[in-house]
Amino acid sequence: MATRSTLSTALALGLTLAAGAHADEGMWMPTQLPDLAKPLKAAGFKGNPADLANVTAAPLSAVVRAGGGTGSFVSEDGLLLTNHHVAMGVIQYNSTAEHNLIDGGFIAQGRSDERPSNPDFRVLVTTGFDKVTDEVLRDARGKTGRAYFDAVDRASKRLVAECEQEGNVRCSVADMYYGTDFYRIRQLELSDVRLVYAPPRAIGNYGDEIDNFMWPRHTGDFTLLRAYVGKDGKPAAYSPDNVPYHPPAHLKMAIDGPKTGDFAMLAGYPGITYRHRTAAEFAGQIDTVLPRRVAVFQQMIDTIEATTAKDAQARTRYAAQLQSLKNNRKRAAGELEGLLRSDAKTQRASDEAAMLKATDATWQPDIQALLGSLSQGASMGERDFVLEQAAAQSQLLRSALLLERLRIESAKPDTERESGYQQRDQALIEGTLKQVQRRYASEVEKALLTNLLTRYQQLPDAQRVPEFDAAFGRTPAALVKALDTLYSGTRLGDEAERLSRFAAAKEGKALAHDPLIDLAGPLVAAQLRMEGERKEREGEQLRLRPAYMQALFAWRAKQGRAVYPDANRTLRISYGKVEALSPRDAVHFDPVTTVAGIVEKNTNAFPFDAPKPLLAAIAKGDFGSTADPVLKTQTVNFLTNLDTTGGNSGSPVLNARGELIGLNFDSNWESVSASWWFDPRFKRAVHVDMRYLRWLLAKVYPAPALLTEMGVPAE
Amino acid sequence: MATRSTLSTALALGLTLAAGAHADEGMWMPTQLPDLAKPLKAAGFKGNPADLANVTAAPLSAVVRAGGGTGSFVSEDGLLLTNHHVAMGVIQYNSTAEHNLIDGGFIAQGRSDERPSNPDFRVLVTTGFDKVTDEVLRDARGKTGRAYFDAVDRASKRLVAECEQEGNVRCSVADMYYGTDFYRIRQLELSDVRLVYAPPRAIGNYGDEIDNFMWPRHTGDFTLLRAYVGKDGKPAAYSPDNVPYHPPAHLKMAIDGPKTGDFAMLAGYPGITYRHRTAAEFAGQIDTVLPRRVAVFQQMIDTIEATTAKDAQARTRYAAQLQSLKNNRKRAAGELEGLLRSDAKTQRASDEAAMLKATDATWQPDIQALLGSLSQGASMGERDFVLEQAAAQSQLLRSALLLERLRIESAKPDTERESGYQQRDQALIEGTLKQVQRRYASEVEKALLTNLLTRYQQLPDAQRVPEFDAAFGRTPAALVKALDTLYSGTRLGDEAERLSRFAAAKEGKALAHDPLIDLAGPLVAAQLRMEGERKEREGEQLRLRPAYMQALFAWRAKQGRAVYPDANRTLRISYGKVEALSPRDAVHFDPVTTVAGIVEKNTNAFPFDAPKPLLAAIAKGDFGSTADPVLKTQTVNFLTNLDTTGGNSGSPVLNARGELIGLNFDSNWESVSASWWFDPRFKRAVHVDMRYLRWLLAKVYPAPALLTEMGVPAE
Repeated sequence: MATRSTLSTALALGLTLAAGAHADEGMWMPTQLPDLAKPLKAAGFKGNPADLANVTAAPLSAVVRAGGGTGSFVSEDGLLLTNHHVAMGVIQYNSTAEHNLIDGGFIAQGRSDERPSNPDFRVLVTTGFDKVTDEVLRDARGKTGRAYFDAVDRASKRLVAECEQEGNVRCSVADMYYGTDFYRIRQLELSDVRLVYAPPRAIGNYGDEIDNFMWPRHTGDFTLLRAYVGKDGKPAAYSPDNVPYHPPAHLKMAIDGPKTGDFAMLAGYPGITYRHRTAAEFAGQIDTVLPRRVAVFQQMIDTIEATTAKDAQARTRYAAQLQSLKNNRKRAAGELEGLLRSDAKTQRASDEAAMLKATDATWQPDIQALLGSLSQGASMGERDFVLEQAAAQSQLLRSALLLERLRIESAKPDTERESGYQQRDQALIEGTLKQVQRRYASEVEKALLTNLLTRYQQLPDAQRVPEFDAAFGRTPAALVKALDTLYSGTRLGDEAERLSRFAAAKEGKALAHDPLIDLAGPLVAAQLRMEGERKEREGEQLRLRPAYMQALFAWRAKQGRAVYPDANRTLRISYGKVEALSPRDAVHFDPVTTVAGIVEKNTNAFPFDAPKPLLAAIAKGDFGSTADPVLKTQTVNFLTNLDTTGGNSGSPVLNARGELIGLNFDSNWESVSASWWFDPRFKRAVHVDMRYLRWLLAKVYPAPALLTEMGVPAE
Repeated sequence: MATRSTLSTALALGLTLAAGAHADEGMWMPTQLPDLAKPLKAAGFKGNPADLANVTAAPLSAVVRAGGGTGSFVSEDGLLLTNHHVAMGVIQYNSTAEHNLIDGGFIAQGRSDERPSNPDFRVLVTTGFDKVTDEVLRDARGKTGRAYFDAVDRASKRLVAECEQEGNVRCSVADMYYGTDFYRIRQLELSDVRLVYAPPRAIGNYGDEIDNFMWPRHTGDFTLLRAYVGKDGKPAAYSPDNVPYHPPAHLKMAIDGPKTGDFAMLAGYPGITYRHRTAAEFAGQIDTVLPRRVAVFQQMIDTIEATTAKDAQARTRYAAQLQSLKNNRKRAAGELEGLLRSDAKTQRASDEAAMLKATDATWQPDIQALLGSLSQGASMGERDFVLEQAAAQSQLLRSALLLERLRIESAKPDTERESGYQQRDQALIEGTLKQVQRRYASEVEKALLTNLLTRYQQLPDAQRVPEFDAAFGRTPAALVKALDTLYSGTRLGDEAERLSRFAAAKEGKALAHDPLIDLAGPLVAAQLRMEGERKEREGEQLRLRPAYMQALFAWRAKQGRAVYPDANRTLRISYGKVEALSPRDAVHFDPVTTVAGIVEKNTNAFPFDAPKPLLAAIAKGDFGSTADPVLKTQTVNFLTNLDTTGGNSGSPVLNARGELIGLNFDSNWESVSASWWFDPRFKRAVHVDMRYLRWLLAKVYPAPALLTEMGVPAE
């Protein structure tokens, strides 16, 4: 296993990219960049690639995790730039009916006026990134299945615990290349983060859902925060006595802006991608998983709309769930559309076939075993999805399942409980149980469960679960009868009934009788059994996938291409260029937008209600030093071909000299499918032009001190 | 008056266009073209402009009115090209449940298989175009108001009657430049028109409402018909013995297609424009008329949606009316948006101010009197619109008003009856009365009338009508009570009740009692009084507008610009070029689309359900001689900056050599406002590329004989 790991390093990192071969695809680990020096330079990078390798030194140490996204320090006094949507919780936390900072925006009048963030907002500064592959895999070697999974899990937990002993740090173990390599990441945890500057919502979220995923775009999706620490320089909870944090590095704001063809690079914490999955997984996603998701979500949308058509109260209660289902449906349909447009299935299949033909015999047995395990899991896909949705889309059934599982887990010592059911999770569970009241109507829940469980009833025997069959019968008539009986008998619609059982469950005590609670006993037992089977498969896949990756490394090496690990919320770098988009026949979009588009879109009504001061400033045309020298006007957003995914929100975009030119905040609709397949024709990332930020701070909602602090002209 | 008319001719026609001054604006009368020889040549026209002056000789005699649009002959045997949507009635008439020619398309297997059109479809070939200004105005001179109006009306009717004596012709008198000049148009009326070739609906109307007004476009909106005449060569009703009509001229299909910058010209019968209206009329349209239309339509949309929310039957009955209101609202909002975007109000106002300052004192008194009369009419605008909508959007109230007016008109000799109430209109009125059944629900009608009449109640005293006040009261409470009483008492909801009164009304006999019928007596009397006042104003405006036009001719002459008459359904020519469109910030559209876009838009579901044979042919890529030599693929639609409006549907688009390159079928959304204001940045017309037609006939749904007949390669 050590051999494999060493080989992987050599193959994945020790290569230079063949010219033109997917030159812009890649979410690289910083440690890979010195080996990518040649293509980086060829792309236009003017700095030293070796400087990018160390995540704990400048410039990468300026790039941090912030809330659910990415942020970057932009001054030596801890000023932090991220997206308006990433900092939305902070802005909301400081808003009141009288002082609505979401609508009105916020400019701190000096540091003492900077506002504390919501208590759970965190900034994480990476201070260590060490390979721990041998430590993680030592005990796992020779094991298979669930035992392999548990050994990796135990070793990882031990490494995290050791690392966190020193305090003030959050540690984690990241799996790179699907079980091939493991890295321990150490992060400083800053919890005193304050709101410094936020534009009004109609700038920070101009266009809202209508413009989401759209290009051309005209959104000032940025906010400035500031990190504070105790007087001793160490992380501390909020206190008025705290002092600004001095980050190990900060980014320098560029003076010039981007134009077509310019080199661009981006650092951030992309969430999850599936680019190195097998051809069978691609086929499954395209032929089965996504069409199933579209169909099931659509059926639930239709069901909610039909059952609430004549019931205004129910309509209100299900509005958020309906919106979420519509978003999920749209997302799945967009991903499917993109994968079909790129012909990803055929392309991945022919690539894999050629790889398997060329690969060393050493890896073949594990690869074949992997494909078998994946196929086994896929054969249960419909059942797993339908039963998961039955819990996720219901309120009372979900409550009963949640309470029963909490009861079981709470009987164990806290550290042994399944994550999600530990003591620290109890507040969240209580919140979930409380909100049922505002989201439930029995007729709608029964109709949704009828849909989903009818689908379950039609599954072949191999996918059946005796406990579910017993609970809901095997015919539509039996199902209707079972649901009617359950929902006419249950008292879980009352908050008090749910909360009294919550009190018992979190002590691991038996739950008082109720038809749904009684049913949850066998159903949760079945869920636990299926979870065990899943972990068994996942353990096998964790053991076997490295062979597939080794074959891939060797195959890509033959093609002259390096391999980046699929995204996993660790720090990555992508590089490419400012690039226009021609998404459809006869349609061409410029890569840079201007304030003219704000005026064109403005309707004075949400979400295109541009603030009066912004419209006045645009009409005045006083763009000063931030005007684009060629366009002769103020730019707003720009487009690059950088490789991004969810989690890259707030990522800084740098020019060839490593200066800050943009702030990543979205992708175009055509690249929704990029989590699986990078198509250079369509994959674009959408950024705020830093000149727009500078103009707003200089001329529209002035904050000259902040511009000075960032080292750019204050007007 | 003769002097004026002569001067108008000199000024309007005797000028050459200053280079660059709105070079592409203009719906020119053919007789103007010899005087536009210089700009025409400069734009790239290779023919002799003098050849375009005569509407009764080649090539213009090939351009005819067809159904509600334009058509052109494309073979010496009467083959006629027009839009699929213009010929829809013909296609529908020949469709049955078994042989649905709309969905499946149609290819005649030889001439004997060509199918007769619906009986009211007509093709009109212009055979005369003579100036009759003196004859029309002779008796009107010295008169004012209603008397002026009636004198013009009488003279026109006399000229038409004289002209139509010879039979087989339809004649009309067209008012050019708002009462300045009049032309008598003589048209041969062909009623034996047959369906020869129609593509399937999913080609001819690919994209339907979703793509309507949109660019890029991928629609094969064409159909081929053939005109037949009796064996004696004269127009005749359908008979199997009839023979193909030999038109005075036919257009030659081009071999090459259009590309950016190419000269293009178009001939057709544009409906109505308002370009030469006064600045006050522009201001009224932008500040009052369009916002009012948007608001009133929106309120009616909301009302129908709210009152039918819980009533599926009512929802069905009001579906068509709701759709029509939504279209009207969208259209008005688009027109308003466009006029605001072009700043048309300011531009027209400053142009008119400069004109009035420069104009000869001769015209000033009439111009001032005109502005006074227009202002008087505008002050009644809200009342007139609201009362017109109360009739138009209701079913029972409209029926009652219609029956009462029919009764009054039917008491007169047929020729003296108001048009719309003559014997030939009775079938249409009966149809209207019959369809009430399928379009009426009393709660919805009461709610709509409550909205509209509440608006009426809020009008100032100057706009009040005693009969309406008496009928509906002057307070909301009185209105509600009046409507409740009327609708609980009326029996007009029964078809038999309406038809028995129709039988009496068309004989001019008294109508049997009914609350709504009784009310219609005073209301129609009020309508007739208001109609009289309107005709009085219109007569004055007809008398006075020529002075405004003379001032405009002189002002444009100073600018080096000729003046075309506003569109009035007479034959016009516009010329310009193939031109791309950049409608919004960072958005650019190519002027030519390709079959790739058909595949991109295809969802296999209406309206993007491209036929399988089309998709297969595109995949095969066998485009032969119709492929674009640069794009290396098959083109579909293209865009020009030609000046068009409703009625130009089916207009042929010609290249610099006068050959047929395209078929006009739509405009882009940004040019909805072009009926008032031509903005060269946004005004485009959308055409079918004749190479697409040729490819479909050669390779997809073959009709080689038709290609041969049109003189182009059959494959």
